[in-house]
Amino acid sequence: MEKIGFVGLGIMGKPMALNLLKAGFDLIAYNRTEDKVDAIINAGGKKGKTPKEVAEQSDIIITIVSDSPDVEEVILGENGIVFGLKEGSVVIDMSTISPSVTRNIAEKLRDKKVEMLDAPVSGGDVGAINATLSIMVGGSQNTLNRCRPIFEAMGKSVTHCGTNGMGQTTKLCNQILVSVTNMAVGEAVLFAQKSGLNALTMVEATKGGAAGSWQLANLGPKMVNEDFAPGFMIDLQQKDLRLVLDAAEELHLPLPALSYVHQLYKSNQANGEGKEGTQALFKSIKRLS
Amino acid sequence: MEKIGFVGLGIMGKPMALNLLKAGFDLIAYNRTEDKVDAIINAGGKKGKTPKEVAEQSDIIITIVSDSPDVEEVILGENGIVFGLKEGSVVIDMSTISPSVTRNIAEKLRDKKVEMLDAPVSGGDVGAINATLSIMVGGSQNTLNRCRPIFEAMGKSVTHCGTNGMGQTTKLCNQILVSVTNMAVGEAVLFAQKSGLNALTMVEATKGGAAGSWQLANLGPKMVNEDFAPGFMIDLQQKDLRLVLDAAEELHLPLPALSYVHQLYKSNQANGEGKEGTQALFKSIKRLS
Repeated sequence: MEKIGFVGLGIMGKPMALNLLKAGFDLIAYNRTEDKVDAIINAGGKKGKTPKEVAEQSDIIITIVSDSPDVEEVILGENGIVFGLKEGSVVIDMSTISPSVTRNIAEKLRDKKVEMLDAPVSGGDVGAINATLSIMVGGSQNTLNRCRPIFEAMGKSVTHCGTNGMGQTTKLCNQILVSVTNMAVGEAVLFAQKSGLNALTMVEATKGGAAGSWQLANLGPKMVNEDFAPGFMIDLQQKDLRLVLDAAEELHLPLPALSYVHQLYKSNQANGEGKEGTQALFKSIKRLS
Repeated sequence: MEKIGFVGLGIMGKPMALNLLKAGFDLIAYNRTEDKVDAIINAGGKKGKTPKEVAEQSDIIITIVSDSPDVEEVILGENGIVFGLKEGSVVIDMSTISPSVTRNIAEKLRDKKVEMLDAPVSGGDVGAINATLSIMVGGSQNTLNRCRPIFEAMGKSVTHCGTNGMGQTTKLCNQILVSVTNMAVGEAVLFAQKSGLNALTMVEATKGGAAGSWQLANLGPKMVNEDFAPGFMIDLQQKDLRLVLDAAEELHLPLPALSYVHQLYKSNQANGEGKEGTQALFKSIKRLS
């Protein structure tokens, strides 16, 4: 069985690492804030002092940290994974970061005869806890096949999206879809309310047909009931939308609807609502009226 | 059994009238273009020379025509339904028109002791043919109960949305949802393609989760395969979006995302694509890049 190194024990990483231990994998973990590693030790894992030390003791090293610079830091920075890697090992980055940064890192690792997979996830902390994540993988099919048992311990669906970076690109498409569809729900709910229509009745009447979406069925009623607890936090969504817009900039691609949602979320952040769920987009839509 | 009058045998009205005949209702029909009534006569129905004559011979009169002025014309205009109505009969308007025009007509009919229901539908011509329409009803619950067997002969779901006009308002919410969600799909598909990602893989990887929608599952692959045959035609969608924007204007309500989709559809129309399906929105999104 492959020995696993795990770097990043945040809200997603910790339950994912615990699921790997539960599935019987040997696991050594590193986290910048050290006390987060205690839960891993209690579950039978080991503690690494640096990403380098984690890499030295592993065949497959998983990273799941906040943003592109954090991934560069733990893989390529001082005491980074790259300095401990054995030839033939694999690095799987499960963070959501820039597709082009991903390709750069993959190239540098290839020079060391190490394969990389980008494998961002959707499904939130609930999916991480229940091992029901959707995993979008970029990299070689062979490497994916080798890592499949690891993915299957953390998620319920694993899609091979293409070469390095394509997992990240698929994740960014996912974020375009959730954000602009959320906008659709917000404008429909507000139009209903301003018209004197019971917006919950509207959601029920429309969600089964061509207007239907996960966002409508799940976030529509929360908007109506003014339940803005996260789900997925606006501050985190904004990081992902910035990644989309940076990638679109590199491609010289205008995305006006997505950009507009990004601006409305800035209105949420400016109003102290950045820690609320993405359905609080409704508040910004409402502020315009 | 109630005797039914039917005004408007277009792409939706004709199959709906035929389903009423199939369910055993007596039916007399009027259409501006007379030869469209032949199909009704062949199926055992009768022909009325004017909307007034249809109303004289019916208990329940259904209208399904193009737009607000057409409904005003067939109900209130020369030889209109209002001049043939018996006290206690019901007018059901199944067109998609302005909620405020609907309320005005309902008020005028109420003066004649005639109840009105607004009952626009979604589900397209396929839903009309197969009697699987979703019907969104505004008006009194009692009148809806009286008309329920008629609705059930034409649709599979009947929702009471509130007082007169609320059926229309619900339909307009439906059109906000389908249009802005369509926009989400178009930007995601284009971002995928410009990034070198197989967009069909992207649709498959995302449609089961929080990004999922009817529009993504059904129109996403059509965009990728450049299949722009209607489904629902842009020219018809534009009429409905104009109704949304007119109603929003009356409410002093900004709907920037919906307005933007309306403008992009204008680009489709300016490029001779008005008879294509709404998924051709993708062409306008692409034209920007």
